[in-house]
Amino acid sequence: MTVSLGPGAPVLAFDVGGTDLKSGLVTADGDIVGVQRTPTPVQPEHTEKAVLETITRLGAELRQQHPEIDPQAVGLIAPGVVDDDNGIGLFAENLNWQDVPFRDLTEKAFGLPASFTHDVRAAGEAEYRLGPASQYRNALVVTIGTGIAGAIFIDGKPYAGEGYAGELGHSVIAPGGEPCACGGRGCLEAIASAAAITRRYNRITSVPVPGAREVLERARSGDTDAEAVWITALDALGLGLSHATALLAPQVIVLGGGLAQAGDALFTPVRERLYSHLTFHRRPELMQASIGQDAGLVGAAMRARAILETP
Amino acid sequence: MTVSLGPGAPVLAFDVGGTDLKSGLVTADGDIVGVQRTPTPVQPEHTEKAVLETITRLGAELRQQHPEIDPQAVGLIAPGVVDDDNGIGLFAENLNWQDVPFRDLTEKAFGLPASFTHDVRAAGEAEYRLGPASQYRNALVVTIGTGIAGAIFIDGKPYAGEGYAGELGHSVIAPGGEPCACGGRGCLEAIASAAAITRRYNRITSVPVPGAREVLERARSGDTDAEAVWITALDALGLGLSHATALLAPQVIVLGGGLAQAGDALFTPVRERLYSHLTFHRRPELMQASIGQDAGLVGAAMRARAILETP
Repeated sequence: MTVSLGPGAPVLAFDVGGTDLKSGLVTADGDIVGVQRTPTPVQPEHTEKAVLETITRLGAELRQQHPEIDPQAVGLIAPGVVDDDNGIGLFAENLNWQDVPFRDLTEKAFGLPASFTHDVRAAGEAEYRLGPASQYRNALVVTIGTGIAGAIFIDGKPYAGEGYAGELGHSVIAPGGEPCACGGRGCLEAIASAAAITRRYNRITSVPVPGAREVLERARSGDTDAEAVWITALDALGLGLSHATALLAPQVIVLGGGLAQAGDALFTPVRERLYSHLTFHRRPELMQASIGQDAGLVGAAMRARAILETP
Repeated sequence: MTVSLGPGAPVLAFDVGGTDLKSGLVTADGDIVGVQRTPTPVQPEHTEKAVLETITRLGAELRQQHPEIDPQAVGLIAPGVVDDDNGIGLFAENLNWQDVPFRDLTEKAFGLPASFTHDVRAAGEAEYRLGPASQYRNALVVTIGTGIAGAIFIDGKPYAGEGYAGELGHSVIAPGGEPCACGGRGCLEAIASAAAITRRYNRITSVPVPGAREVLERARSGDTDAEAVWITALDALGLGLSHATALLAPQVIVLGGGLAQAGDALFTPVRERLYSHLTFHRRPELMQASIGQDAGLVGAAMRARAILETP
């Protein structure tokens, strides 16, 4: 890891995903050590209990492995609908929990101050504050992976909308179109997420692929089915980002997540499509996320440090 | 006028529109007196000079008519792209000006502190603060008249995006569709503004109508052309508002402007369409604007009072 949070309190950081749970310890210098992935202990119900047990165990192990580091707070992040202000997991479809006071439960489990925030907003904050987008006051950080979600920064501060903002993955691009995991139809996520690109291509090909990367490769080597799926995704992303631009006028849009690793193959055509929908609007810069896959842990650690700094 | 701003400094208020210029004087009790409409003195270029002359004259007349009121500040609002923070009219297509420091010019002309802000944001602030939406922290006020534009309130404060935010009228609903005054295609404004509804209907009917009100009347009395135009507008509004909801999660959306006067005929079907696009999203309340056509003057006066309260 080359990213550093800079000097501050040592903290524990946990990033609970739908599949993996990442853990790490941030030093007083701001480096992350002991980064580890373990499977998320998903349960048919009340996954929160198993998650809290797992992070408590992982935290104890990290402290044993690094006795020289004395963490002062815990940063925990998770997907779903999260009330950042009150540290409550309101809802997470894949993780089977509802209205869980994670912040308070984590404080009890560790005997330390804790923060509980939304994974995309925390990762977005890491990208926003530690990357080149930090020079702008108004920014949108969009993660395109299995799903699509955004983190909004207004006048330099995250805007969560009581946990409901930033859901541009569930903004309808094609009314009545592709069914989405959320129960809607034609959502951006159902057309343009890495998972959707893979799924849509595998539905029409006779030789399935494991991921969006391979769909792009086939599109490049002349597979017209792959090309059609890829172009529909680019069109949807350009249109979705143009809606966000008209409404919010971000100075910069940062794209991260698995799909952003396609680099120019994604950014050049999406930028072109986005700008084609704009006239007098301010054109946002379109930037690739710079921290990448550990942005969640970094963001969790930033939030944990922030609570120590707030009286 | 039944609306009152409540007690505060007496101020002059001017609302420059594409056709009319409205002026008025706000008393220390918060009532608006001497409200008057004059034609906006649109010039082939530099309309700002004629506007400044006109408001200086109207201001002098108001003071003569009401010698008992001693205005302490001037609130001026106008359409286009406006940098509220610095009081600059960046651009206004119909009014032929560019980068005009209206705030400073108004201060000089009147010898009083002045504010210069965007008309839709100022009117939106009046609707937000003085209407039932004031109970919410996060709100969107959308004006649907000749054009469509929105005023965004984040944690109780207006968000202007350096003058570029809130342009959901120029968010593309039908890519490649109806040409828009902004130079784009398929913008919400080109489909669903009162002017667009009238224009689209008059293009296909043999008996033209003067406004959207008559299109709605004909739709109700079985004119299938009028019905088709009206339904396309409702669909576009529902979809556009759903995009704003997914991204911003406003607790309330207030609809104002001429089209909102259709009342239930607009609100019931738009609400239904908006909610049909939402799944786990928070459903915003959809409210009719309560101040109406003088919201601009009220908002201009509120901004003028605000500068007296800020050191």
